[in-house]
Amino acid sequence: MGMVGGGRGAQIGRAHRVAAQMDGKAQLVCGAFSSTKQRSRDSGRDLFLPAERVYGTYREMFRKEPRRPEEDRMDLVVVVTPNNMHYPVAMAALDAGFHVVCDKPMTMTLDEAKNLARKVKMSERLLCVTHYFTGYPMIVEARRLVAKGRLGAIRRVVAEYPQGWLATRLETMGNKQAAWRTDPKRAGATCCMGDIGSQAANVAEYITGSQISEVCANLTTSIKGRPLDDDASVLVRFKDGAQGIVWASQIAIGEEDGLTIRVYGEDGSLAWRQGQPNRLVLHWSGKSTEIRRTKTGAAAKDAPANTRLPTGYPEGYLDALANIYSTFLDAVARDMEGKKPKKDDLDYPDVYDGIHNMAFLRAVVRSSRSKEKWIKVPK
Amino acid sequence: MGMVGGGRGAQIGRAHRVAAQMDGKAQLVCGAFSSTKQRSRDSGRDLFLPAERVYGTYREMFRKEPRRPEEDRMDLVVVVTPNNMHYPVAMAALDAGFHVVCDKPMTMTLDEAKNLARKVKMSERLLCVTHYFTGYPMIVEARRLVAKGRLGAIRRVVAEYPQGWLATRLETMGNKQAAWRTDPKRAGATCCMGDIGSQAANVAEYITGSQISEVCANLTTSIKGRPLDDDASVLVRFKDGAQGIVWASQIAIGEEDGLTIRVYGEDGSLAWRQGQPNRLVLHWSGKSTEIRRTKTGAAAKDAPANTRLPTGYPEGYLDALANIYSTFLDAVARDMEGKKPKKDDLDYPDVYDGIHNMAFLRAVVRSSRSKEKWIKVPK
Amino acid sequence: MGMVGGGRGAQIGRAHRVAAQMDGKAQLVCGAFSSTKQRSRDSGRDLFLPAERVYGTYREMFRKEPRRPEEDRMDLVVVVTPNNMHYPVAMAALDAGFHVVCDKPMTMTLDEAKNLARKVKMSERLLCVTHYFTGYPMIVEARRLVAKGRLGAIRRVVAEYPQGWLATRLETMGNKQAAWRTDPKRAGATCCMGDIGSQAANVAEYITGSQISEVCANLTTSIKGRPLDDDASVLVRFKDGAQGIVWASQIAIGEEDGLTIRVYGEDGSLAWRQGQPNRLVLHWSGKSTEIRRTKTGAAAKDAPANTRLPTGYPEGYLDALANIYSTFLDAVARDMEGKKPKKDDLDYPDVYDGIHNMAFLRAVVRSSRSKEKWIKVPK
Amino acid sequence: MGMVGGGRGAQIGRAHRVAAQMDGKAQLVCGAFSSTKQRSRDSGRDLFLPAERVYGTYREMFRKEPRRPEEDRMDLVVVVTPNNMHYPVAMAALDAGFHVVCDKPMTMTLDEAKNLARKVKMSERLLCVTHYFTGYPMIVEARRLVAKGRLGAIRRVVAEYPQGWLATRLETMGNKQAAWRTDPKRAGATCCMGDIGSQAANVAEYITGSQISEVCANLTTSIKGRPLDDDASVLVRFKDGAQGIVWASQIAIGEEDGLTIRVYGEDGSLAWRQGQPNRLVLHWSGKSTEIRRTKTGAAAKDAPANTRLPTGYPEGYLDALANIYSTFLDAVARDMEGKKPKKDDLDYPDVYDGIHNMAFLRAVVRSSRSKEKWIKVPK
Repeated sequence: MGMVGGGRGAQIGRAHRVAAQMDGKAQLVCGAFSSTKQRSRDSGRDLFLPAERVYGTYREMFRKEPRRPEEDRMDLVVVVTPNNMHYPVAMAALDAGFHVVCDKPMTMTLDEAKNLARKVKMSERLLCVTHYFTGYPMIVEARRLVAKGRLGAIRRVVAEYPQGWLATRLETMGNKQAAWRTDPKRAGATCCMGDIGSQAANVAEYITGSQISEVCANLTTSIKGRPLDDDASVLVRFKDGAQGIVWASQIAIGEEDGLTIRVYGEDGSLAWRQGQPNRLVLHWSGKSTEIRRTKTGAAAKDAPANTRLPTGYPEGYLDALANIYSTFLDAVARDMEGKKPKKDDLDYPDVYDGIHNMAFLRAVVRSSRSKEKWIKVPK
Repeated sequence: MGMVGGGRGAQIGRAHRVAAQMDGKAQLVCGAFSSTKQRSRDSGRDLFLPAERVYGTYREMFRKEPRRPEEDRMDLVVVVTPNNMHYPVAMAALDAGFHVVCDKPMTMTLDEAKNLARKVKMSERLLCVTHYFTGYPMIVEARRLVAKGRLGAIRRVVAEYPQGWLATRLETMGNKQAAWRTDPKRAGATCCMGDIGSQAANVAEYITGSQISEVCANLTTSIKGRPLDDDASVLVRFKDGAQGIVWASQIAIGEEDGLTIRVYGEDGSLAWRQGQPNRLVLHWSGKSTEIRRTKTGAAAKDAPANTRLPTGYPEGYLDALANIYSTFLDAVARDMEGKKPKKDDLDYPDVYDGIHNMAFLRAVVRSSRSKEKWIKVPK
Repeated sequence: MGMVGGGRGAQIGRAHRVAAQMDGKAQLVCGAFSSTKQRSRDSGRDLFLPAERVYGTYREMFRKEPRRPEEDRMDLVVVVTPNNMHYPVAMAALDAGFHVVCDKPMTMTLDEAKNLARKVKMSERLLCVTHYFTGYPMIVEARRLVAKGRLGAIRRVVAEYPQGWLATRLETMGNKQAAWRTDPKRAGATCCMGDIGSQAANVAEYITGSQISEVCANLTTSIKGRPLDDDASVLVRFKDGAQGIVWASQIAIGEEDGLTIRVYGEDGSLAWRQGQPNRLVLHWSGKSTEIRRTKTGAAAKDAPANTRLPTGYPEGYLDALANIYSTFLDAVARDMEGKKPKKDDLDYPDVYDGIHNMAFLRAVVRSSRSKEKWIKVPK
Repeated sequence: MGMVGGGRGAQIGRAHRVAAQMDGKAQLVCGAFSSTKQRSRDSGRDLFLPAERVYGTYREMFRKEPRRPEEDRMDLVVVVTPNNMHYPVAMAALDAGFHVVCDKPMTMTLDEAKNLARKVKMSERLLCVTHYFTGYPMIVEARRLVAKGRLGAIRRVVAEYPQGWLATRLETMGNKQAAWRTDPKRAGATCCMGDIGSQAANVAEYITGSQISEVCANLTTSIKGRPLDDDASVLVRFKDGAQGIVWASQIAIGEEDGLTIRVYGEDGSLAWRQGQPNRLVLHWSGKSTEIRRTKTGAAAKDAPANTRLPTGYPEGYLDALANIYSTFLDAVARDMEGKKPKKDDLDYPDVYDGIHNMAFLRAVVRSSRSKEKWIKVPK
């Protein structure tokens, strides 16, 4: 596996390297870690890579790697560049015949997302978008319970993702993360909704197995002079008839446990909180509350995979991301053996998940500017 | 004090009797507990009242009590009848010269609420609506912190009140509570929003000291054949510029801890949950999280009153309701001494709070039927 | 019902009055509220009692009340005096033919406790010690589950009751509660263990249905000059073979949620915390965790009684104490009808529970001074 | 870095590899992963190691690696064998001139531990025992607060580590983990206390900066036929005068969140729970409760290092273990530069921590068999 972006000091690059290699299913062999050759080399040396596998540009890497001996060459590219580079790098990687892991958001626009899907199809390569929440074992368990009909028809979904780090105008105080996220040129048409609200919506859709089809959005900005939203409240309707709320905020001082999702059905309900990711709280009509936990009780039977540690050891973000990689790397391995990986067995977030997320964001932005109550999500 | 309604088996009657008498500021001396004379008498005997102080109708009680010797007669009427009787009983009580405690909702319509306010003014009597959440010491503490500006300007409010008891169609299975609440004739134009959503909105307004001025509402019904809403999601805007969400549900299976409110300001935020009513969680920008608790630390100085038990003893619903009574009975006592009770000292939920609640409900119902996004709350 | 002690400003008196009258099964008709006649009268007037039913001394009350007409006279005495008066007042009340409710601890010594039991037997009156924790519905539910064998044989019990209010030397700063509790003359041979550790032990025994038979105790004092323990750690062995830990502390700064108890059996375990009294957490071998809650699910069937409020309304200390009263008043009523109340139906903490508690405390104090590891609890 | 043990399927081997390499400060270059050459080779291939760096025995590895070119050879050995091999492997590694990371427990006996310390001193190499709890940032923060005197003199410590996985006799059902842990030959004189109780004690000593000097222990076995303890309750006294309780259990069904520690001082107290490792709860006398969290508020200043993820991302066991490695690898790097690493700057659990842990366990086992109440921990 090779990496584009993620050089010295980039947290996201380290996280992907640790997660990708956690189960011994891949090994970092090369990279184009930075936009300057020298910085890329320094990063490569930090990572104990031989000098000839560290490239100045991703184009050079995509050109040279295929010429190496087969047992030695890169098969897969991990794209952890700034967001606006995801699309061109992923397109070029697919063109060069590599499988791709792309950090979220997959692209900047819905059109780019659709182009990328066409390219995936034509190239017959695999692409994974790291919507990492769906790597948490208890999120997978939640999806299984809904799919089995254990909760009955889903009536209502409340997903929230409050953060507080943009409660002050950090973007003018030298904080780079804040600067690009609040800049329409680099972040696109939304800040809060695009960065975290989209994740809350994605988890809601993943668990319910149904897509959001209509939105009524209120994107707001609390800080004077900030051009994009820092809080987003959206009433949502799902295709299958459920309704709900998606709320995300970056000005909710003190919030840190991140995403919480509650799903209410005819016969029961479930709740999951990022702060206690190994727990799934289940309420059954007329019965006691049930708490399933990774590797214990009922959940052990349903979700045996994807938990590496003994019961009670706190698993975290790295474990979830590693689960996404583990499934995708199995799919890649199967593909390399000439077999077609099946969605049912090896369910990773793919290019179509990426497309829908972009469509959802487009509808939310339009809705927020509209006087009409409900706006449809384009297909 | 006398009571109208609240006879044998009525939980709400017992709660009001215990709460009203908890601090020794009032004593139940008479009542018209039921619509039939015999049932009223049975209830009176249960309560150790002399037979001559138990009346067949509230009209009889309002006529006869004023003729009793002054030191002995009723001064105050507690109205705990079904909702549609609140208005006529309260009007008659004020006409007869009594102070009134009225269970919430104060009336069935906004017009009734306004009439009642005029009557309060003319009669120069006092009226309290038992919005009991504002009796929790930590809710009062929250209001004080916001009023002092400790959180800075308020940006966002998220209030929710999920319940699950109407997730099945109880109203057709002999459950009386469900039957009247889902009947438009007895409950008015809304079930879920009127019963509990209005309380969430009321607490939000109480803490922030600002009223909701615009709403964008989605009232839904999950049960076929149920004529009123059993779930209500509302985007809200406050007069002072804050925005937020009010969500209430009666189909959220498993939810039981009731109301939760979170308020986010420029400099800090707060959270309160009914399930742990003695705690107020405070987040300050750039500092550790703070948990204030009744009778400890900082809160002890700010909120010395209204806590009867030693630290750590769980206080509950009765204590909160008793706090509302305690304040109102002090106001009544001051009035009877010929002094005008001041809102700043003796702040109980009054007839104007009741009016605003009815106006809010009217706007929510209209909004839910409208294709327009935002609907104004009438003044 | 009449009351001895509990005059103006005494929290414990108010709590008992509210709790005793909550379900309409008793009415306060007389009292000897204070050691001075004037204070007693003032208290009586606060409580709306006629002057002739307010007495200067309990002896006067016990002499005069029996002479009143039968339908009017006191049947039951509530003893809420300082601890050292519990014994003489309770003895006198039984002698005069009254039933007795006595605040805990029942007496100052084991010998007094045994005398009192003899008097109860001879007088054929009923006596209840208000070990109020056993009034919490989920504590009763826990006892039932253990008794039914649902947890299998009990192996281990961990009961703790940490408080922090004596972390500084309050007794020299004018705090009366601290002064008498740390005074060997008024509090007896132990402060922390007697005041709260004994309650933790009592709950452990109540839930398991087995008594502590051996102790290994470490009573310590953290504050120089304080003559009694302010922290108590005890290893314990139960008659039926279970072992465990009882820990109580008054110097554990910040602790306020009070008593927590965990019971581990062969097939499952349970946990209860005073801070969330309506919940019982159950762990079953190889299954999900279960949370029972008052009035919901499984618990609703097993524990229908003793919960007055709708689901989700926080119940507190007053509700628990009221449950103890409710059961005992039913037993008194049955006794007055000439029937013998049965322990199985009407299970309130009685004089034998009081005796065992005194025996346990004696063993703990002896153990703490001993170099031997294990000390037996006398029978 | 090279590894001894930790071959295919060994969770502990993978955890150490991920943690050691997380910050790019070390790279796995060789290993003797298994007791058979073939299994060792298979494991090496899984790890993408060249065949010539995968050895059949640790002795072969220690002999051949020093002969490789300097820039290429192993500097450090990670020992993740079964416990009874820790001592011989670590001794041989030091003899061969390597630095050593040794999984806990360091040795089987106190004598071995002392021998190892002498070897460390003579060899002038560094040795780290992976007491990984001390790698959690909030545990480090707790130690700093105590050292600064913020809590005042420490009065009481309550440390507990309950697990439930040995509540049934797994050792006879083919569970290897259970089999060796309950076998005196492989596990030594204690099972529960040695495996997890020792960790609870270690964290207590780390945070308070004071060692346990006397113990009164009750080791018990709940399962018939099991030769070692599966539950351990210990009253403890610290050198500096604090007292407390250490409780560990393997039969506490349902417990999974692992270690909890509470420390009470004159001026404040703290609590940390493994289930929410990024939080430190602080209670201050007469003030609100404070919750510090990694990367936020006050803690950000005191504990800037050792947190890799953005605020709110759950960190887990791997992050804590990686922190231990990070500090130790810095010490090794400094040593290789010819500078002496200082304990104050680079504080990792060393051979003396390992010795004290063995001494504590010896005293606990002796105490449990003794009729005397208090037994001293040998120096």
